[in-house]
Amino acid sequence: MNKHPDYLLNKISGPKDLKKLSIPEMEKLAKEIRTLILEKDAAKGGHLGPDLGIVEATIAYHYVFEAPKDKIVWDVSHQTYPHKMLTGRAQAWLDPDHYDDVTPYTNPNESPYDYFAIGHTSTSVALATGMAKARGLMGGHENITALIGDGSMTGGLAYEGLNNAAIEKHNLVIVVNDNQWSIDKNVGGLVTALKKLRDSNGETEENPFKAMGFDYRYVADGNNIQDMINAFKAVKDVDHPILLHINTIKGKGYKPAIEDEEAHHWVMPFNLKDDKPTISMPKGPTANSVAIAVIKDQINAGIKIMAINAAIPGVFDLDEIKDKYPDHYKDVGIAEQESVAFATGFAKEGGTPVLFENSSFLQRAFDQLSHDTAANDLPLVMMVAGGGISNQSKTHLGIFDQVMISNLPNWIYLAPTNLAEEKAMMQWAIKQRKHPVAIKMPTINVTEGNDSKIIKDYSNIQYQVKPGKDVAIIALGDFYQLGAKVASKLNATLVNPVSANILDKDTLDKLAADHKIIITLEDNAIDGGLGEKIASYLGNKNVKVLNYGQKRVYTDQTPVKEIYKQNHLTVDQIIADIKAL
Amino acid sequence: MNKHPDYLLNKISGPKDLKKLSIPEMEKLAKEIRTLILEKDAAKGGHLGPDLGIVEATIAYHYVFEAPKDKIVWDVSHQTYPHKMLTGRAQAWLDPDHYDDVTPYTNPNESPYDYFAIGHTSTSVALATGMAKARGLMGGHENITALIGDGSMTGGLAYEGLNNAAIEKHNLVIVVNDNQWSIDKNVGGLVTALKKLRDSNGETEENPFKAMGFDYRYVADGNNIQDMINAFKAVKDVDHPILLHINTIKGKGYKPAIEDEEAHHWVMPFNLKDDKPTISMPKGPTANSVAIAVIKDQINAGIKIMAINAAIPGVFDLDEIKDKYPDHYKDVGIAEQESVAFATGFAKEGGTPVLFENSSFLQRAFDQLSHDTAANDLPLVMMVAGGGISNQSKTHLGIFDQVMISNLPNWIYLAPTNLAEEKAMMQWAIKQRKHPVAIKMPTINVTEGNDSKIIKDYSNIQYQVKPGKDVAIIALGDFYQLGAKVASKLNATLVNPVSANILDKDTLDKLAADHKIIITLEDNAIDGGLGEKIASYLGNKNVKVLNYGQKRVYTDQTPVKEIYKQNHLTVDQIIADIKAL
Repeated sequence: MNKHPDYLLNKISGPKDLKKLSIPEMEKLAKEIRTLILEKDAAKGGHLGPDLGIVEATIAYHYVFEAPKDKIVWDVSHQTYPHKMLTGRAQAWLDPDHYDDVTPYTNPNESPYDYFAIGHTSTSVALATGMAKARGLMGGHENITALIGDGSMTGGLAYEGLNNAAIEKHNLVIVVNDNQWSIDKNVGGLVTALKKLRDSNGETEENPFKAMGFDYRYVADGNNIQDMINAFKAVKDVDHPILLHINTIKGKGYKPAIEDEEAHHWVMPFNLKDDKPTISMPKGPTANSVAIAVIKDQINAGIKIMAINAAIPGVFDLDEIKDKYPDHYKDVGIAEQESVAFATGFAKEGGTPVLFENSSFLQRAFDQLSHDTAANDLPLVMMVAGGGISNQSKTHLGIFDQVMISNLPNWIYLAPTNLAEEKAMMQWAIKQRKHPVAIKMPTINVTEGNDSKIIKDYSNIQYQVKPGKDVAIIALGDFYQLGAKVASKLNATLVNPVSANILDKDTLDKLAADHKIIITLEDNAIDGGLGEKIASYLGNKNVKVLNYGQKRVYTDQTPVKEIYKQNHLTVDQIIADIKAL
Repeated sequence: MNKHPDYLLNKISGPKDLKKLSIPEMEKLAKEIRTLILEKDAAKGGHLGPDLGIVEATIAYHYVFEAPKDKIVWDVSHQTYPHKMLTGRAQAWLDPDHYDDVTPYTNPNESPYDYFAIGHTSTSVALATGMAKARGLMGGHENITALIGDGSMTGGLAYEGLNNAAIEKHNLVIVVNDNQWSIDKNVGGLVTALKKLRDSNGETEENPFKAMGFDYRYVADGNNIQDMINAFKAVKDVDHPILLHINTIKGKGYKPAIEDEEAHHWVMPFNLKDDKPTISMPKGPTANSVAIAVIKDQINAGIKIMAINAAIPGVFDLDEIKDKYPDHYKDVGIAEQESVAFATGFAKEGGTPVLFENSSFLQRAFDQLSHDTAANDLPLVMMVAGGGISNQSKTHLGIFDQVMISNLPNWIYLAPTNLAEEKAMMQWAIKQRKHPVAIKMPTINVTEGNDSKIIKDYSNIQYQVKPGKDVAIIALGDFYQLGAKVASKLNATLVNPVSANILDKDTLDKLAADHKIIITLEDNAIDGGLGEKIASYLGNKNVKVLNYGQKRVYTDQTPVKEIYKQNHLTVDQIIADIKAL
């Protein structure tokens, strides 16, 4: 039921209604939008600070421009709750029964006001350069805008886009939303440059955007609706690229989000009265706590560790390393390419880099993983989080990193089946100093495992086999428990293959000789995964092979159970498949 | 035999000998190095302009710094012929019998003066940020230098590296070798910024490097040895990051290379007297000429084509499009991420982008191919050159792009077996407007093919089968001719699978039913390739499957014949394998 039937927002079915409002009415609307962001985030979790900060700029944009004819590309699109509310989707905030109707990122399937599905940073300007060029060739005249900021400016693609935008001779407005923050504290030389611009009210000559040739404008208070309307009116229908630098407050309107911006970039459900989370975190060891403990032990043992991440320390609970061991911590900003190249240089110089990467964002660094790390065969240790089948948006799926890394030469890709194994793999990876090693952190809850029973040396991959008969189930990483369930029902052989890309051929030969059917299970895409390698290796043997994983399709906020069903990943489906053979 | 026993260079076994020379002697040395670059390039081909331009800076570097204790990372490392000559490898230029002794890029296996194997652009600063950080933690005190330029500054990773370098508190020297050029004409806003700096003798306040916080220095004549020695002496052992901008002349000392810098970035063997190539190009249609003809036809037919590339028009003979159809041509600079994002925006706006990418360099754009193009399922057409097994350096192998792209959802990866098929695939890809399509341009000479016999619609992949018996050979793309040879010797079935990632399951079922053995051949890595997909699909059938391609290892300037042998890719080896089954 609509919690706020009295809200002005109820009357806004799209930008055309917004255009009828006065400034005071729009200011009232801004307050309503802030309340709604907070209420829904408190209930469901979501991005908070970025959305609170961009409310006025969004209202002003839709007041001045003629969307969807005029087009705006929202960088990362994690700040588009106000945009969604103003473009026909307010019910998804007004009415808790409809909280799940709307996805958290821009989504062309949801609205003509959303132009791309976007979830990674730094792409908006680059996409807009292509759009503006096509508009010219197609004979269009609409305004094309890219809104970038909130840390996205540290990604190299932002610069590649700016570099090309700067020399164009047509309409293109780049809004730099400078809220002085990314997910974690904003890092780097550009921060210095933006600060000089803010401190001089946009007037310093040390202006990287002017140096590149941009017509540069500055708005000191990007949370003032009138100022933003004036600024947008001044740049509408221009015939050349303009860079509009706006200074906004991340988290505006919610004191805890201003006082601790990092913790409020994205939030779990929380209590609006005291800002405390309403969901308690699991007690006991986790994939993160195991990794952090290993880092601390190694540093204390005198190993020259550097814990490296690209603006996502919170994902790994790295704050403890950052605070207690600052010489052993490096956040490169949202710049995954730099994170891998930095780690590669660090390893070459004799240090021990441990990278903490998110499966989906790591895609940005594929060439560095290949050209820099693998071709030079340097001993990086890389912990990958979020790798596996998930209910995420299609821009955030974790089923591709294993394919990307494990098919490159020299990389050893390990997948622990429990926490004791994660620890042992990480300790070995740090010690070996020979090759780059990636470790797929379990994304499903796994058991703690028994430290004394775990292999400590992964120089030669040896499959761990629990003998059964007729059928052998090779179950990688956190799908080992799924394999165990199937094996127990069939009295089948259960195999932990340890690695996603190095085959234990002796054991495979024996398994093929002793079994009729071999099943592979992996929490990953089938295409390019471990299963296909095993099927290929066993292609000349007298054994049937069935590969299980996610098909080569984008799921989009699909519940995991449903994805499992679609891919025959339930115990019953797998057993039925085996029996049907 | 040494062609120049009288050269001073004969006495330079390493930097220590260089340090004994006077300025006039070093100037003489510079002349000798230029002559040697020209002589060897005339005989063998290679990078020319970049090496001619960096001679004096290289001499000055080794005169001032203490390599290999002090370390320099050469961006792209295509300008390191002078460096190699000064670090014990001069015989590979002095003596034609030894021309092949030395590889064209930095190579740690070749010399302790080479720190990384590098062949892609924009990585040097990023690698150096990690090295400098490790030096601090390891207690070292050496100078760390990154030398970047010659177009490499347009790649986003360069900016990510600069962004992190700018805020460090330790020694790090970044030399920006500004020769106003990349492979093709340098593109973008940074060019504007560098020009302002050159025009003001480094003194304009519109300085993007100072804005980021760098201590900035300028050398107006980077081809003056004394000036470069002074500049390097001034920055040696500094305790903070310095950006040293040097203005050099690409191609210096060879008039044709200055007058047409693009044509002399990299050269085929040529005659020093008239600069004309000594190897004649093949007559008749090629993979390039077919693609260019399709582009022209489509533009003339009114299709809103944009031919896009990332600073490598020469690789595809795109100059004709650039000159005759400038509205349909876009070079984004060395910025592969931007090239794909630009094309994605262009497609979304209704235009028809045709990307021309190099297999190895395209690795830089993996995330855009996934997150931007594929997740939004937009109709890009992408022609990929250099995809296949080659004798290239390990940083330039073409066996990974198919793996990278074809395992992503929505991408259709086509591989023509002859030129008529390439044309038909390209025409269909442009027309279909539904999905992104990559086309692997043949790298081995293929036949022209018969236009009238070629399929014109690739909406449903249908394998092309020439029936034989017992054995079926599925031979992808330019390995079709290898498959034909094997098939003819065995009277086997020969199959053109058309696509590297979409299976024709009906035909595979029939092949499995009618044959004892199925062989897959692909000019690509086996890991993550088509063969594994076919082995996986046929895992539950009563048929043996053997996959052929390159193993998951980096080859490094290995002759193709040798790679074929190592991977059982000769006709005799394949037949022996089949008979042994």
